[in-house]
Amino acid sequence: MASLKDRFEHALTPAALRSYLAEFISTFFFVFAATGSAMASRKMSPESPMIDPSGLVATAIATAFALSVAVYLSVNVSGGHLNPAVTFGMAIGGHITVPLAIFYWISQLLGSIFACMILRLMTVSQNVPVHGIPEEMTGFGATILEGVMTFALVYTVYAAGDPRRGAFGTIGPLVIGFIAGANVLASGPFTGGSMNPAYSFGSGLVGGSFKNQAVYWIGPLIGAGVAGVVYDNVVFPAQTPEESIRGITDGIGV
Amino acid sequence: MASLKDRFEHALTPAALRSYLAEFISTFFFVFAATGSAMASRKMSPESPMIDPSGLVATAIATAFALSVAVYLSVNVSGGHLNPAVTFGMAIGGHITVPLAIFYWISQLLGSIFACMILRLMTVSQNVPVHGIPEEMTGFGATILEGVMTFALVYTVYAAGDPRRGAFGTIGPLVIGFIAGANVLASGPFTGGSMNPAYSFGSGLVGGSFKNQAVYWIGPLIGAGVAGVVYDNVVFPAQTPEESIRGITDGIGV
Amino acid sequence: MASLKDRFEHALTPAALRSYLAEFISTFFFVFAATGSAMASRKMSPESPMIDPSGLVATAIATAFALSVAVYLSVNVSGGHLNPAVTFGMAIGGHITVPLAIFYWISQLLGSIFACMILRLMTVSQNVPVHGIPEEMTGFGATILEGVMTFALVYTVYAAGDPRRGAFGTIGPLVIGFIAGANVLASGPFTGGSMNPAYSFGSGLVGGSFKNQAVYWIGPLIGAGVAGVVYDNVVFPAQTPEESIRGITDGIGV
Amino acid sequence: MASLKDRFEHALTPAALRSYLAEFISTFFFVFAATGSAMASRKMSPESPMIDPSGLVATAIATAFALSVAVYLSVNVSGGHLNPAVTFGMAIGGHITVPLAIFYWISQLLGSIFACMILRLMTVSQNVPVHGIPEEMTGFGATILEGVMTFALVYTVYAAGDPRRGAFGTIGPLVIGFIAGANVLASGPFTGGSMNPAYSFGSGLVGGSFKNQAVYWIGPLIGAGVAGVVYDNVVFPAQTPEESIRGITDGIGV
Repeated sequence: MASLKDRFEHALTPAALRSYLAEFISTFFFVFAATGSAMASRKMSPESPMIDPSGLVATAIATAFALSVAVYLSVNVSGGHLNPAVTFGMAIGGHITVPLAIFYWISQLLGSIFACMILRLMTVSQNVPVHGIPEEMTGFGATILEGVMTFALVYTVYAAGDPRRGAFGTIGPLVIGFIAGANVLASGPFTGGSMNPAYSFGSGLVGGSFKNQAVYWIGPLIGAGVAGVVYDNVVFPAQTPEESIRGITDGIGV
Repeated sequence: MASLKDRFEHALTPAALRSYLAEFISTFFFVFAATGSAMASRKMSPESPMIDPSGLVATAIATAFALSVAVYLSVNVSGGHLNPAVTFGMAIGGHITVPLAIFYWISQLLGSIFACMILRLMTVSQNVPVHGIPEEMTGFGATILEGVMTFALVYTVYAAGDPRRGAFGTIGPLVIGFIAGANVLASGPFTGGSMNPAYSFGSGLVGGSFKNQAVYWIGPLIGAGVAGVVYDNVVFPAQTPEESIRGITDGIGV
Repeated sequence: MASLKDRFEHALTPAALRSYLAEFISTFFFVFAATGSAMASRKMSPESPMIDPSGLVATAIATAFALSVAVYLSVNVSGGHLNPAVTFGMAIGGHITVPLAIFYWISQLLGSIFACMILRLMTVSQNVPVHGIPEEMTGFGATILEGVMTFALVYTVYAAGDPRRGAFGTIGPLVIGFIAGANVLASGPFTGGSMNPAYSFGSGLVGGSFKNQAVYWIGPLIGAGVAGVVYDNVVFPAQTPEESIRGITDGIGV
Repeated sequence: MASLKDRFEHALTPAALRSYLAEFISTFFFVFAATGSAMASRKMSPESPMIDPSGLVATAIATAFALSVAVYLSVNVSGGHLNPAVTFGMAIGGHITVPLAIFYWISQLLGSIFACMILRLMTVSQNVPVHGIPEEMTGFGATILEGVMTFALVYTVYAAGDPRRGAFGTIGPLVIGFIAGANVLASGPFTGGSMNPAYSFGSGLVGGSFKNQAVYWIGPLIGAGVAGVVYDNVVFPAQTPEESIRGITDGIGV
């Protein structure tokens, strides 16, 4: 049995440290744009009790664009997870070790918290919006919705990183952003469309409310785990060991 | 003459079963985002009798993004149809056998129904919107509009899967999503811009109304059939057998 | 001196006829989505004297998406002009012969007229919107604006078809759509953002008004001609004959 | 020590002059669409004291689309900077000489001024909008926001030009546009989302106000400089001299 030191050794190499930094920076960029766009829409319609469809479009496009870019920036270094649910799905599929996954989670959470703090401090007069659900929805329904959407997101992450897709890999970062944007449009007034526990945790911590926080952890983690199992074993089973998923899903090292 | 068993044998191989699953999952992702975005816009403007342009933009972007991703996810397995009209157009052109096409249709219809059911159950207070036409339009006019738009969509699917286009094939899934989004913007308040019988059937079944359902079957199926004939025989006729359309249009097997 | 018959012979080969059909179909798809989206926005805000920003966004996205697709569909056959100004710019640069250009123009005009007629007939209660300028603008100012924007569009068409750009050519159809969409956003309430005489002629003919039509011919044709000269001779001069612009700009034949 | 003449000689070759022209033209296209879209939204909602979310979406999409295209057009000639902050970040990293950088700045400033003048003259009745910050924000906070967003933009420019990314380089111009659009959505009602001193200077000069101009120089220049240092030395350090950043970041010559 390997000692704790042995198990963590590979998680502290220079390449690993660079991948944590890449996860931190890209998660920061993503949460900054996604949360900032929700604040911007709210500032522009202060009289309205809730955002209107044009505010939802703003947040969805910011999410789609920023996530595409954030994945693009980190895919060659860390694999472009930027999301504890994605990292969890990759760990379930055996594409990342548990010690590495732990440091990925920490980097993602710090990136999200830091982005929300910058927005909170610099805009002065406005609080950071927190993910939440409307009165008439149940926590169970919200968890299912977030789970289904995260299933779609992580399934797409798996597909984008599958080397058997050949030249289609080039547009992988774009389609990862697109599925997130489409799901925000579908779920905005219901759950806010997080699909990312780090995103919800950062805005919850800085915004000062952890109500419904469980929805944004349980749903995405289950959805991500199921996506990994379904993609690897059912729809695209590897015929030989060499065909195992690589690319976006395995990170570290240019 | 081949027995029924022989004719269906190739439709029940593991590769074929995986392609049905891929059609089911991708159609689910697409209909979930497209129908969900219409529900989200409606929830945000409850006082308005009809959605406004910003709600139309939300639905169109959700359609474009989600269809791009859904095609991307299934193109290497099933050919990325996600639409009975596309499958019909491919069958007309001889790119898929009739037994396979039947199972594709079933998978697409189930994916759409399942997506609408999830949305209906989890959001609790709101019904699924059903495709329909305004009073002043005729059923004939609506059928022509849906047929013309489906012609454009299926013509694009043929082009995206044509191996003679070389590197342009890489952005094929994006342009398939873009033409669907553009057509939703052009037709939103007229027919809703379905171009997909499975999409209209799923929302009709769960939403509880089959009024005008014929519009969304007759128009798309005719438009798709014409598109296949025009593309294969007139604009891009194959010079030699080896030049026949492959890629996106022929599916099954990575 | 070549006889008229000799000069037109190459314009009547099967490959040439297919390229006219491709121009017709792609121009039809583009104008259908662009004009249809303006009608859809107008139908959704009937009380408003003019479209609001969300209607402008709808038209701009429809323009960007549909033009990207239309170029994508015809680029391997006809070069993907879909616009008399683009064809004029290519003729100025010597990339297409005058007889071919004449048939391109006819195909583009017919595609646009046909798209507007379908929209007019099927939606029944609404007229086709015609490009126009607000009272406080001069025809000269509008012509300059359309000319500057068409300069940008045709310069982009040249760049997208330049084989010296290597792999960047793959996203050429997307950037052609994007520059058109960006310019519609910049000019919507001023000139409508046509950049395409066929588009303005078709909606003018079916909509029943040729007021300001000259703006949409003079501006785009001059802008396109200047773009061709600047691109070919100043910014990207061909060092050797083999480096001459090919790809998107030269058409005919897969 | 090299004489002044020697140091400037390489900045006056035909290739260098063409790169200045490419910077001028592309910056013109970008600022024309970005500033024009803000004017268009304002014209459509004249009664509103500030733009609403749909106006913000219009400006953000125009920014994203136009910047993608502008980078695409000039990347093979000048490296596609179009922004004094990007040029500054490249100079900090040693990817462009100081004399070249000076001429790049001049070209970018002239392109921006010229775009704003065309818009001002041709639309007649409306002034060019100037970047500014709301009352409740501090100049320090605005500078930090612009700095953080420019950090994200220039980090993306570095990544898009990194040859170690292989086929992902193809979509580089798109992701550069996307990060700018996402940041406009996040910062619209706070700082306007400039990230580009030339953009802010041109609209300030033609619009007649240099209030807060320092925000749009200090923030972006610092953010760009930090991005260059972090990318080159921390996240993606070159292992060997041959691995140094090339592509988009180094310009001049097709």
